[in-house]
Amino acid sequence: MAANKLSEYTITEAVRGRIADTPNPRLKQVMQSLINHLHEFAREVQLTPEEWNAGIEFLTSAGHITDDKRQEFILLSDTLGLSALVDLMHHRGESDRTTESSLLGPFYRSGAPELAPGSDISNGTAGEPLMIRGRVLSSDGTTIPGAVVDVWQAAPNGLYDVQDANQPEINLRARFRADAHGRFDFRTIKPASYPVPHDGPVGKMLSSLGQHPFRPAHIHFIVSAPGFETLTTALYIAGDKYLGSDAVFGSRPSLVVDYRDASANGSDAIEFDFVLAVR
Amino acid sequence: MAANKLSEYTITEAVRGRIADTPNPRLKQVMQSLINHLHEFAREVQLTPEEWNAGIEFLTSAGHITDDKRQEFILLSDTLGLSALVDLMHHRGESDRTTESSLLGPFYRSGAPELAPGSDISNGTAGEPLMIRGRVLSSDGTTIPGAVVDVWQAAPNGLYDVQDANQPEINLRARFRADAHGRFDFRTIKPASYPVPHDGPVGKMLSSLGQHPFRPAHIHFIVSAPGFETLTTALYIAGDKYLGSDAVFGSRPSLVVDYRDASANGSDAIEFDFVLAVR
Repeated sequence: MAANKLSEYTITEAVRGRIADTPNPRLKQVMQSLINHLHEFAREVQLTPEEWNAGIEFLTSAGHITDDKRQEFILLSDTLGLSALVDLMHHRGESDRTTESSLLGPFYRSGAPELAPGSDISNGTAGEPLMIRGRVLSSDGTTIPGAVVDVWQAAPNGLYDVQDANQPEINLRARFRADAHGRFDFRTIKPASYPVPHDGPVGKMLSSLGQHPFRPAHIHFIVSAPGFETLTTALYIAGDKYLGSDAVFGSRPSLVVDYRDASANGSDAIEFDFVLAVR
Repeated sequence: MAANKLSEYTITEAVRGRIADTPNPRLKQVMQSLINHLHEFAREVQLTPEEWNAGIEFLTSAGHITDDKRQEFILLSDTLGLSALVDLMHHRGESDRTTESSLLGPFYRSGAPELAPGSDISNGTAGEPLMIRGRVLSSDGTTIPGAVVDVWQAAPNGLYDVQDANQPEINLRARFRADAHGRFDFRTIKPASYPVPHDGPVGKMLSSLGQHPFRPAHIHFIVSAPGFETLTTALYIAGDKYLGSDAVFGSRPSLVVDYRDASANGSDAIEFDFVLAVR
């Protein structure tokens, strides 16, 4: 009738056994593993009641600062490298010939307008002008006419349109369609490195861990075409001092690009070919 | 300048290395272990982006239902056995002669009034009358005059006063002071088994894991006296059908008590001696 005596060593199996009849086998697998690793963590560090309580308070603060524009739990996962790990596992086994993926991040909005080739997405926002051009290719080397290049980035003040009442409602984001030769090109302004939101519990955590909250300057892309795996990635600007210490572990050496001097055209330029995997 | 190429295998060390300069050595130890075990969990189950997203949504819901009266993160920790594990580690090495501890739970309020011996704490709440009496002892067998017995329990409807607008503001909770012989006694009503709050994300989780949300009937105690370790515990009623499956892993065989027929006094009775460890 009563349970057998619980100890710090037997409780893990007791909890895992309790959910042995979970109807969904995948849920059972995930939860039994989670219970195991959480308990192992607590035993390994000999977590005290005061520390456990601090953890509860941290999660509570993260929950209370989270709303439809601020997602502290994603930020927590990002800064602990968990988001990047899930992303890396998801893309395991992809050919080295395809473009590497990078984190989607919290600032993507679907439904950005499709603009004509060569359009400027900066709507007059102050900044150094930049041209971006390249091709969308299949991993077999052929071009992909009609591929869609969805782009979004922060303004030089480090804020995305959704974070900044001084920007137009849709700013520094658009979709472009590759031409018959798989080519795309558009105009924008140079991105800057910026801190992730750090006025909340995750910011406090980073500070207490001796870490800065900065991401290196980057421009986000989702590149898609029928018959190909959709590519979520970003281009990072060479020379940025945070390239080796991206607060969310998103930067990848293969995605670092140099500005080319194209001043004859009135601006620097980035040239990059996105290579998609055949589905 | 750029980081070395990250893989699902190297990212854990990259994240752990990033916080190597954490000023507080204990915080560094706890966070490095947490990162390790979270990453191990994600790799072991090959967590997918969709599952990761479901986890983020779960934490977000838990954060949003949590307020000053509802603590979904403690409930989550309780139902995953983590609270009980921390409690068991904290009390490791205590003598078998002292009373076993049990979870504090979320319904304790400090500052309950001290009542005279024999008082009734039920304020007329409908229920079967119950006497509770016993002694407070030192682990060397001597009595502890003047020890404080702080008691709180739910009403037979399964609700604590703080959850139930139909109960007096302070109900079914009080402090009693042991007499010169270490004895205490008071009157109350019999507790009933009750579900933990299960209208939120943790309730959904329990349901999807094929678990019930019930705790076996119990009465909470904090017993304290100068020079002794404070004891946080609870007494569980023999025969309760949830004794072996307490949703928060709080029940302990050594804390299960039978009702004694004391009908000559107009009610059943519980007799129990609390044994404290010398500090």
